[in-house]
Amino acid sequence: MTTVGIDAVEIHTGKLRLDLAETFAPEMGDAPEKYTKGLGLHASSFPDTYEDIVTMGANAAHRLMKRKGLEPDDIGRIDVATESAFDHSKPVSTYIAGCLEQVFESDFHHANKGERKFACVAGTQSIDDAYNWIKAGRNRGRAALVIATDTALYARDDPGEATQGAGAVAMLIDEDPNLVELSTEQGYGSADETDFLKPQQQFPSVDGKRSVNVYLARMREALIDYERVGGKIHADDFRLGPFHTPFPGMVRKAAVLAYRHITRDTEIEEELAEEIGRQPRSEAFDSDEAYLEALSEYTDALKETERYQAWYGRTIDPTLTLSRHVGNWYTGSVHVARVSGLKALAEAGEDAVGERLLVGSYGSGAQAEIHVETVQEDWREEIEAIDIDERLESRYELTFEEYEDVHDAHNFDEESAVEEFTVPEAEFAFDGWGRMGERKYRYVE
Amino acid sequence: MTTVGIDAVEIHTGKLRLDLAETFAPEMGDAPEKYTKGLGLHASSFPDTYEDIVTMGANAAHRLMKRKGLEPDDIGRIDVATESAFDHSKPVSTYIAGCLEQVFESDFHHANKGERKFACVAGTQSIDDAYNWIKAGRNRGRAALVIATDTALYARDDPGEATQGAGAVAMLIDEDPNLVELSTEQGYGSADETDFLKPQQQFPSVDGKRSVNVYLARMREALIDYERVGGKIHADDFRLGPFHTPFPGMVRKAAVLAYRHITRDTEIEEELAEEIGRQPRSEAFDSDEAYLEALSEYTDALKETERYQAWYGRTIDPTLTLSRHVGNWYTGSVHVARVSGLKALAEAGEDAVGERLLVGSYGSGAQAEIHVETVQEDWREEIEAIDIDERLESRYELTFEEYEDVHDAHNFDEESAVEEFTVPEAEFAFDGWGRMGERKYRYVE
Repeated sequence: MTTVGIDAVEIHTGKLRLDLAETFAPEMGDAPEKYTKGLGLHASSFPDTYEDIVTMGANAAHRLMKRKGLEPDDIGRIDVATESAFDHSKPVSTYIAGCLEQVFESDFHHANKGERKFACVAGTQSIDDAYNWIKAGRNRGRAALVIATDTALYARDDPGEATQGAGAVAMLIDEDPNLVELSTEQGYGSADETDFLKPQQQFPSVDGKRSVNVYLARMREALIDYERVGGKIHADDFRLGPFHTPFPGMVRKAAVLAYRHITRDTEIEEELAEEIGRQPRSEAFDSDEAYLEALSEYTDALKETERYQAWYGRTIDPTLTLSRHVGNWYTGSVHVARVSGLKALAEAGEDAVGERLLVGSYGSGAQAEIHVETVQEDWREEIEAIDIDERLESRYELTFEEYEDVHDAHNFDEESAVEEFTVPEAEFAFDGWGRMGERKYRYVE
Repeated sequence: MTTVGIDAVEIHTGKLRLDLAETFAPEMGDAPEKYTKGLGLHASSFPDTYEDIVTMGANAAHRLMKRKGLEPDDIGRIDVATESAFDHSKPVSTYIAGCLEQVFESDFHHANKGERKFACVAGTQSIDDAYNWIKAGRNRGRAALVIATDTALYARDDPGEATQGAGAVAMLIDEDPNLVELSTEQGYGSADETDFLKPQQQFPSVDGKRSVNVYLARMREALIDYERVGGKIHADDFRLGPFHTPFPGMVRKAAVLAYRHITRDTEIEEELAEEIGRQPRSEAFDSDEAYLEALSEYTDALKETERYQAWYGRTIDPTLTLSRHVGNWYTGSVHVARVSGLKALAEAGEDAVGERLLVGSYGSGAQAEIHVETVQEDWREEIEAIDIDERLESRYELTFEEYEDVHDAHNFDEESAVEEFTVPEAEFAFDGWGRMGERKYRYVE
C-alpha cells in the first residue's frame, strides 16, 4: 500500500510584529503577564499593507516549490483553506496559482483548484482530501499543494484582540513523503454550535466561554471516535501532540483533560492512584453535579503530578513555541504546532524516525478531528530547511500607533492610506484593484 | 474494485416562480423570445421569505434520507457546495446537520462536515472528495451526503437578472450506487480568470462576454486533459452530455464546439466532409485570423447538419428541460442537468443500464471538469422517485411587484418585511436571528 502524507512544509509569517507585553499590554492598562502567562502569547504577526492571504499563501507555496525543485506540472491539486476569503465566488487558490504562474515557465491549467471553509479545521480537511485523492489513484503521479492562509484579526477592543495573528502554511501532500505519513484512521467530533461566527462580517463574533467548552467537548468526541477505529490511545505512545492552538493557554487547558481521558483504565491511572486517587466514576455519585466537581478536583490534582508535567513538557509544550510568537493563524495553527514540535526534536538532536504524533485539529462551529502521523526517514532535513526563525526575527516591530494603522489598513470597512513598513523583496505583493473590483498581484524581484 | 458513485438524488426548488415571458419581459420592454429563445429560459425559481440555502439544502437532504431509509449513523460526511454562504467561518453543512437533528433521533456528531467554494463547480468537487474518501477506505461503510445549494440572484437590472434561480440538489455518494458510477478518470481545465466575481458583495460582477469565452476555453482544456487518461472521446459513445447550464443557450453554444472537437479526425468528420468540408487545420492558413474565421464558418455549417442536430437532440437537449423552468442554480446546475437527462430517458421507457454520460462541470474564476458516469441497474427507480415535476408545478406564481419584494427580502443590504407567499408544511423554515447574529431554523410539521 502506498504511503501518503506530508512531504514538506513552508511557513510564511506576516512581516510585522506586535509585542503584547511591551506594546499592547500598557495601552490596555494590563499587566504583561495577562498575555505572556494567561494566554501564553508574547507577540502577534501582522501582514504589511502589501500582504494578504493571497501573497502569504503564494510566497509560502513558491518557496516550497523552489526548494523541492517542483514545476507546475508536478502539482495536480491546489487547495486553499481559509476563513478570510474576500470573494464569495472565486477561490483564493486561483489567485495563488495566478501569482505562481508569474514566476514559473509553465502553468497549472490541469490542476484541480479548490477552497475549503470550516473555521480553523479546514486546513486539515484539505490535507485529508489530498490524501484521499492520491489513495483513490487519481493523482497521475502528481502531488497536492495545500495552503492554509488567514489574516486572523478581531475587531479593536474585542476580547480576542490579543490572540490575533496572520500567516500561511504551505504543505506538499505526496506519496512516500519525507516528513510524516498520515493514518487512514480518523476520529471526528462535530456539532452545530454557535461559539464563533462571522455572519456577513469580516471580524468574528465570539462567545469566548462557550468556545472553550465546545473545543473541549468536540475534542473528547473525536478522541473517542478515533479509538473506535484506531484502537485505544495510550499517553506514552505519542512523541508529540500538536493541537489547534488559538493561544497556548487553550491547549494547556485541553491537554490535561485529554491526558485524563487517555489514562483512564490504564496503568498510569493506577500508578497515580496512590498520589491523587483513582479517577471519579459517575456511577459512584448521586448527582451529576457531585461527579463533575469530583472530576474537576481530580483534574486539578492530576495537573500538579510530576508524571503529568513530564508528559506535558515532553509531548505538548514543544508544539507551542512558534505560536507564542505569532498568535493565532486560524487554519494554519495546528500545522504551525506540528512544525514547532518537530523543530524542537531536531534541535535536541533526537532520532524521531518512526515516532508517532497525535494531531488534534479544531474549527469553531464546530468540529474536531484526530488522526495519527508517523515521522518519516527524511524528516530532519525537511524541518531544518524551514527558515521560520530568521523570518520571525526580521519582522518589523510595530509601535501601538502603527498597529492601529495596520489594523485599519486590513479592515475592509475602513478607507486607509497607510504606507508600507517594509520593502517587498523577492516576493509577491498586492498591486491594487482591477476593473471588476478584483485584487491584483505582482512579483517584486 | 468497489464501484462508487451517486446512489440517489433529491431536488428542492425555491417555492416561488417568475415567468420570464409573461411577467419579466413586458416590464423590461423586451420581446418574450429574448428569454425563451435567446437564453432558452421560461421561468426562474425563487426562495420564499422563509427559505434560504440552509432550508433548501436541509429539505432536499431530509427527503433523500427518508426515502432511502437512512439514519444519521449511516452518513460519514456532509459536504455543502455553495457560493451563497452567509458566514465567513461557520459552514452551511453545520446548519443543515442541525436542522436534520431536529427530525432524526440520533445525531451527526461523528460525520465530517465541510464546505467548498469555487463558483458553480464546487458541487462536483464535493462529489469527487466523497468518491475519494470511499476509495481511500476511510468511510467505515458509511455514505456521504453532498448538497449543492444556492440562491443565484443578480443585482436588479444586471444583464444576468433573467438567468436567476434558487434551489438545492442533495446527492448520496456510496458504494454500489443505484444511479451512476463515477469514472476514476477526470480532466481539468483551470486558469486564474476575472470573468465573474463577488468581491465582498452578495451579487456578482460579471463580464458576460468574457465569461462565455472562458467557459468554452476551460471546457476545451478539460476535454483534452480527460482524453489523456480516459482515451479519445467519441461523440456516439455517450448517451447524454449533462453540462453546467447557467442558461440553456450557453450549453447550445458550447455543444457545437465540443462536437467539433470530439469529431475531429474521426469517421464523423469524414462523413460530413462531402456536405460541409473537412475541419480547417491551422497549418493550412497564413494567419490565426484566417484560421479562426474558417473555423467559425465550419462551426456554423456543422450546426446546420442533420447529423449534428440529431446528436444534439439526443445527447444534449434532454439535459436542459428542467433548467428552462428553474434558471441557474449555480452549484446545483450540472446536477439538475444530469437528472433532467435521465428523466427524459425514463419517460421514453429507454433501457439505459450501462449507458455512459459525459459530464461537464464548470465554475467561473475559472475551472472546468470532465468525467464519465455509467448508468447503473436501478437508475430508473431512483429517477422516478424524484417528484420535481409536482414541485415545479406547485410553485407560487409571482407578479412583477411581488418579484421585486422577494428580491429585496433576500438582499442582505435591504431592510425588508415582506410577508411569506406560501405556507411552510413538513419542511424546515427560517426562524429568525439568534443572539450572535446567527440564522435559526425550525421544522414546521
